[in-house]
Amino acid sequence: MKLNGRHEQSIWFDSKSGNVNIINQTLLPHEFRIHQLSSLEDACSAISTMQVRGAPLIGVTAAYGIYLAMRENPEKLDSAYQALLATRPTAINLQWALDRAHSLINQLPLPQRLDAALQLARQMEQQDIAICEAIGENGARLLEKLWQDKADKDKPLNVLTHCNAGALATVDWGTALAVVYKAVEKGIPVHVWVDETRPRNQGASLTCWELAEHRIEHTLIVDNAGGHLMQHGQVDCCVVGSDRTTLNGDVCNKIGTYLKALAAFDNNIPFFAALPVSTIDFSLKDGLKEIPIEERDKEELSHISGVDAEGVLRRIDITGDDRNISNFGFDVTPARLISAIITEKAVVAANAEEISGLAD
Amino acid sequence: MKLNGRHEQSIWFDSKSGNVNIINQTLLPHEFRIHQLSSLEDACSAISTMQVRGAPLIGVTAAYGIYLAMRENPEKLDSAYQALLATRPTAINLQWALDRAHSLINQLPLPQRLDAALQLARQMEQQDIAICEAIGENGARLLEKLWQDKADKDKPLNVLTHCNAGALATVDWGTALAVVYKAVEKGIPVHVWVDETRPRNQGASLTCWELAEHRIEHTLIVDNAGGHLMQHGQVDCCVVGSDRTTLNGDVCNKIGTYLKALAAFDNNIPFFAALPVSTIDFSLKDGLKEIPIEERDKEELSHISGVDAEGVLRRIDITGDDRNISNFGFDVTPARLISAIITEKAVVAANAEEISGLAD
Repeated sequence: MKLNGRHEQSIWFDSKSGNVNIINQTLLPHEFRIHQLSSLEDACSAISTMQVRGAPLIGVTAAYGIYLAMRENPEKLDSAYQALLATRPTAINLQWALDRAHSLINQLPLPQRLDAALQLARQMEQQDIAICEAIGENGARLLEKLWQDKADKDKPLNVLTHCNAGALATVDWGTALAVVYKAVEKGIPVHVWVDETRPRNQGASLTCWELAEHRIEHTLIVDNAGGHLMQHGQVDCCVVGSDRTTLNGDVCNKIGTYLKALAAFDNNIPFFAALPVSTIDFSLKDGLKEIPIEERDKEELSHISGVDAEGVLRRIDITGDDRNISNFGFDVTPARLISAIITEKAVVAANAEEISGLAD
Repeated sequence: MKLNGRHEQSIWFDSKSGNVNIINQTLLPHEFRIHQLSSLEDACSAISTMQVRGAPLIGVTAAYGIYLAMRENPEKLDSAYQALLATRPTAINLQWALDRAHSLINQLPLPQRLDAALQLARQMEQQDIAICEAIGENGARLLEKLWQDKADKDKPLNVLTHCNAGALATVDWGTALAVVYKAVEKGIPVHVWVDETRPRNQGASLTCWELAEHRIEHTLIVDNAGGHLMQHGQVDCCVVGSDRTTLNGDVCNKIGTYLKALAAFDNNIPFFAALPVSTIDFSLKDGLKEIPIEERDKEELSHISGVDAEGVLRRIDITGDDRNISNFGFDVTPARLISAIITEKAVVAANAEEISGLAD
């Protein structure tokens, strides 16, 4: 991604110090700060406090965490694995990355572990970049077609997105936003409607920030507003990410995605999900019945952070003493509402026949 | 409405002092404070700073404002009218109330104006209460039927509402919440899912507070969550208010209402709009084309108030320097998604034939 015009990643290895750098995402958009991870403890803390978030980025950070642990003591592979796994209990990608690292390193003699761990982490980092870039290229062709067909070329191609499926959720490029970045590279004038994305406001805090850094036109809206915009011809397509996709094409993504897909369908607007093949669960055939939806901390709704008039970052309670709150993290958008699924391998229809063709 | 078990209104005349009392809604839910209006200036300020909000309540407050002005000087009817009208430029109900007061009082000799103004304000107050109570009774019959038909009586009747169409938006009872209050009076065990209602959070701040005071079971959710709940059988019906309704049954209400109506329709859940006949515009036949949607201040999205850990009420900026924001106040839900329209006169289908029968 571009930051102040320079190319940067959400996580990168510093070959001089042998440490790992991340962008501390908990301070965005109010403060941009790079944080150095120099120990296993640093890596665990970065994941658990959500300085890094987004499934692909968590996976790569965990792999670097194993490397940092091997640098401290190559004997402590098992304890490092456990410590990292405990940072975000529900992140499937975390376990996948740790299993991959553990199975490779566990069979190696102690002196070889450090190099192997670093090599694996860097390899996973580069793989993630390549996958996201390919998703972007495949999706950009869809946007190019929409732009060619758009009657009113005085207005930009209006893309609505929900949450942050951007470079900050991955090592670079992102998934949904990779599609936007690659479309802009093709010269298509894109404007993005950014859903605020309550309760954690990743749209307002992260997606707007990313798009501003890339000098891409964008407008922040509340999650309530997308339907109104679609009714009035202000949205040409929706592009979202996915945390988990079923064989039949049901998409589990950030809570609220389903409502936008309904509005897109009602207004005959294409609704795309952009995702790496690794997030497709080929064993699932009914997302609504088979995917459990995580209930998260009530404080994500009741509390929020921002800066006061003096520029001091503060956390406040916006709901008062009433603590009757439910906080569902995700919802499932049925395949019938998804126009296409964009992956690094191909763009496919949201049905079992086409999705099964993506399996290795 | 009940407050600490006592019956109260959102606005009331204090016959001892001759002043008018309101609940200062800008401090809720963090602080309950009664504010006394003793001058025209007080009344103007209460409306413009949104200490009172909600179309019916604004109208009654304006009528009391005319009374307070007549107490100061019965000659200044015209200037009082202009001052009150300027407080909320887009509130249709405000103009209606002021026109009513002006046309009555303008024809009276100066010595009669004070009494007439007070009498009219109290009459409008009582009319609003009677209308809201009738809306509640008519709507409660719909909920009673749903409860009778509900298979699983171990669970309460789950009602989802958006924004605050409660007693705090009117003099008493409310519109959508009147339906809930009257259903509870009938002995129906109701649980309300309360949409937070970004950007102003009237659901979180006002609806939850009202329901808590009435000891009615409720749960706060983000606006993104309703679709997920409906997919999983957790919502038996939706009840919302309306700011303006067309002859054909299109409902203009708080931004995001349309998205909930889509989800209700997709899951075969009844979606009711509860409203006084005075908010029906019998001249409009296409809400999407004919109702202009107000764009409001960007700071409603970028800033929010709440209390910090020390209990100090603070206002913070949650979006950073990026000020690309659009803030649409309302959306239009097409009549095809509305199961019934609940008014003080009758419950009708959302079509021109039935709605035209409500005209005087």
